[in-house]
Amino acid sequence: MASPDDARARSDADLGAAASALLGDRRLIIATNRGPVTFVAGADGSVRPRRGSGGLVTALGQVGHHVPVTWVAAAMSEGDRRAAADPKLLRAAAGGERGVQLRFASVERAVYEAAYNVIANPFLWFLQHQMWNLPERPVIDAGVMRAWERGYVPLNEAFARAILAQARGDRTPRIMLHDYHLYCAAEPIRRARPKAVISHFTHIPWPPSSIWQTIAPAIREGIAMGLLANDVVGFQTERYAHNFLRMVESFVPDAKVDYDAWTVRRRRRTTHVRHYPISIDVDATRRVADSPRSRRRADQLLGGSRERLLVRVDRLEPSKNILRGFLAYETLLQRQPRLRGRISFLAFLVPSRTGLREYGDYGRKVQDVVDGINARFGRSGWRPVQIFYENDYAQALAGLSVADVVLINPLVDGMNLVAKEAVLVSRRDAALVLSETAGAFDQMADGVLPVAPADVVGTADALAVALAMPVDERRRRLALLRRGVEREDITWWLRRQLEDLAELAG
Amino acid sequence: MASPDDARARSDADLGAAASALLGDRRLIIATNRGPVTFVAGADGSVRPRRGSGGLVTALGQVGHHVPVTWVAAAMSEGDRRAAADPKLLRAAAGGERGVQLRFASVERAVYEAAYNVIANPFLWFLQHQMWNLPERPVIDAGVMRAWERGYVPLNEAFARAILAQARGDRTPRIMLHDYHLYCAAEPIRRARPKAVISHFTHIPWPPSSIWQTIAPAIREGIAMGLLANDVVGFQTERYAHNFLRMVESFVPDAKVDYDAWTVRRRRRTTHVRHYPISIDVDATRRVADSPRSRRRADQLLGGSRERLLVRVDRLEPSKNILRGFLAYETLLQRQPRLRGRISFLAFLVPSRTGLREYGDYGRKVQDVVDGINARFGRSGWRPVQIFYENDYAQALAGLSVADVVLINPLVDGMNLVAKEAVLVSRRDAALVLSETAGAFDQMADGVLPVAPADVVGTADALAVALAMPVDERRRRLALLRRGVEREDITWWLRRQLEDLAELAG
Repeated sequence: MASPDDARARSDADLGAAASALLGDRRLIIATNRGPVTFVAGADGSVRPRRGSGGLVTALGQVGHHVPVTWVAAAMSEGDRRAAADPKLLRAAAGGERGVQLRFASVERAVYEAAYNVIANPFLWFLQHQMWNLPERPVIDAGVMRAWERGYVPLNEAFARAILAQARGDRTPRIMLHDYHLYCAAEPIRRARPKAVISHFTHIPWPPSSIWQTIAPAIREGIAMGLLANDVVGFQTERYAHNFLRMVESFVPDAKVDYDAWTVRRRRRTTHVRHYPISIDVDATRRVADSPRSRRRADQLLGGSRERLLVRVDRLEPSKNILRGFLAYETLLQRQPRLRGRISFLAFLVPSRTGLREYGDYGRKVQDVVDGINARFGRSGWRPVQIFYENDYAQALAGLSVADVVLINPLVDGMNLVAKEAVLVSRRDAALVLSETAGAFDQMADGVLPVAPADVVGTADALAVALAMPVDERRRRLALLRRGVEREDITWWLRRQLEDLAELAG
Repeated sequence: MASPDDARARSDADLGAAASALLGDRRLIIATNRGPVTFVAGADGSVRPRRGSGGLVTALGQVGHHVPVTWVAAAMSEGDRRAAADPKLLRAAAGGERGVQLRFASVERAVYEAAYNVIANPFLWFLQHQMWNLPERPVIDAGVMRAWERGYVPLNEAFARAILAQARGDRTPRIMLHDYHLYCAAEPIRRARPKAVISHFTHIPWPPSSIWQTIAPAIREGIAMGLLANDVVGFQTERYAHNFLRMVESFVPDAKVDYDAWTVRRRRRTTHVRHYPISIDVDATRRVADSPRSRRRADQLLGGSRERLLVRVDRLEPSKNILRGFLAYETLLQRQPRLRGRISFLAFLVPSRTGLREYGDYGRKVQDVVDGINARFGRSGWRPVQIFYENDYAQALAGLSVADVVLINPLVDGMNLVAKEAVLVSRRDAALVLSETAGAFDQMADGVLPVAPADVVGTADALAVALAMPVDERRRRLALLRRGVEREDITWWLRRQLEDLAELAG
């Protein structure tokens, strides 16, 4: 059997080969809203770079290790807008990113705010996560339509211009667009470079047509037709890809959808609709989990206690279904009195979009439910739920590493990387309870205990089964899951896309 | 060209022929939650029959004009439960219904309450109309699971027993089950009579799998497998039928779905999945609209006024999207000052489930928005919105008959019969603004102005277009729609189902 290092080297070589096949002597152009570096304007007039974080940035940063990359991001701040016009600053900042050249798509602040704070974040995110009380929200009023027409669309056009500026002299540039901020960028690129090779990948869920059907035709058609200007449109799961095909069939009359070939034919062009489940950087995740700080924290969390540990790690937001997770735990404690005093629920909750009213309201409800459980069951020396409300990745991995059971019950989730991290860092043969509605479920179904997110009773039952599961069975499942995560890692995600694009570029 | 009377006679004859082909010398057994007659227990110990109302009862009552029908309904009240055991009472009560024999499926009050007030009405209705704020509702707790297991399922079994009692001695009874109260009745019937010919028709929307995926597996699988015990499963639209096929594929592992043939094969049985858009009784609707009372009311509503009339008729409930309808009207008044004083919005809102908190809250929000519009734009002698909050069918038809524009913008709707009534009774060549998400849209798309329900700006635009539409165009569209409603009426709906069943019964 090959050693993990051999496998890693081979996987890296495969990625390099796919990249070369696609690019020749070109640079790969990647576009995302948030870039690998952001600039902070100081009060003294200076502008200083700061490295970005987040899964997407980490994932895409890797490509630079294998091929030269030009990365176009939105100028999100005043600092970014100033850096956009200062090649020296950009060059200096990109120095930290191997193989990466940095560029900004820059629009006026008001335009960006409309695109980001009216359309992308509150509107598209909520829509695609089905997080609305539909009888009342959304209300597509004049403000929303204006933000679409004068914010989102112009921002996408600015991206297209910035990308085209990097593709000067190349009739067939290779371009990867990312996520729900950039549904309309391919079309203006395609107009200028009919033979460009362009892909778009959506990181969040793609809901069924009945959801798109509730919103303004100009927006849903703009999104569908915008995406059809790509050669490849990628999603996290087969179901999301299918939902996209159905959406196109519903709203783009001159498109011909082939459900077997997974293609859309429109105006003599073919768009391939694929799914590429994203994953984590296995080595990097292990490195953090094995760091002295994370190890130390793990020992502290474990303490000398003989309690079983139930753990969750999530951004504190409604789609993560945190409320029902605690209700299920409450049901469990109520049904199994012998668990009281012998189990702790450690919830690592990362602050998220704290400015949004819906998030604030949700956070307060979560706190109320937790207070209720601690008041009802807690006693001196035993606190049923402990909340860690901070952004501390090493601590969160430490929590996952010592868990007996990890609860991941999102209402809906593009992928959910916590499930994959938990598998990788577990040191106590954790059993995973996972929502069927998480994208990750498609790859992990055979090794987890499935739950339907609204099913509080079913979730309590699954927790009980997980806690009672013999160690051999837990170990067997975890080994199965771990092999999957190691095999289908972030390199695999990227390579498959590059290979598909190379094949199309012929 | 044939006269309408000729067409009517032919249509009746076709229905009679289909019924005879299906039944031979049998009675057709129909099962619904609410029957054509209900019984009221008096304080003096007496039990008095009262005729039921509602579209379904009217529609199915017609079958009795053509063939002998045994109608099994739930004993909903104490009076019903007593009548259930009193053949004389039942016989006397059924006298008013041509050809109809009346029977009750009777369960203990607590069982019925659980089925009706925990599962069917708040749970399935809300789920299938996507009326939830999903991050918080539904919560499937022990109470819901108990109501499913000890309420809904036993009620369905009681229906099966009552139906089988009527099918004594018949190895192949013909049975039509109706709506979301009876998803699980076919299975116990099938066990006792493997060769019975059974259909089920769902009158409300069938949401996509991503919605079913959020709820407890025992419930969604119970529903899917329960329905597969029928020979024919009918829905209002092709999209709902498709959603059902997808649901079966997702949740019933041993079922084989054929999307081209619209069939499901499971355990050596085939279920045919069809769509039969329901409609209205054309003659009966016209009779009410032409009644002196309705005519008089129409004249009063019209008054001597030279105002344009915008009209809506709806049960006051969240799925009807009444709030956004008023917001669109407000946008219209704001954008077109010359309309002020020259248009009235008459809203005929029928009280509905006033005991449900969600409905009460929604009603208050509607009132607030209306008060806001009247305060903002109203002036002496002109009230922009008038609400008629009562259950008065003749008055509602009167309102529709004098409308210049009818607004029907539900968030989602199984069919929406108001759209069809409006077409039939209009005396002023009304233009219709209709949600794409109403089942009726599939049949009426060519003659209406379409709107997406959350699109307030688009709805305001559609109202403006409707108000500005030349009378010739309005007349042309209305004639087109009217021909459709006359052709595809309630008799047509029923006949197609009987024909399909007759073909299967061979």
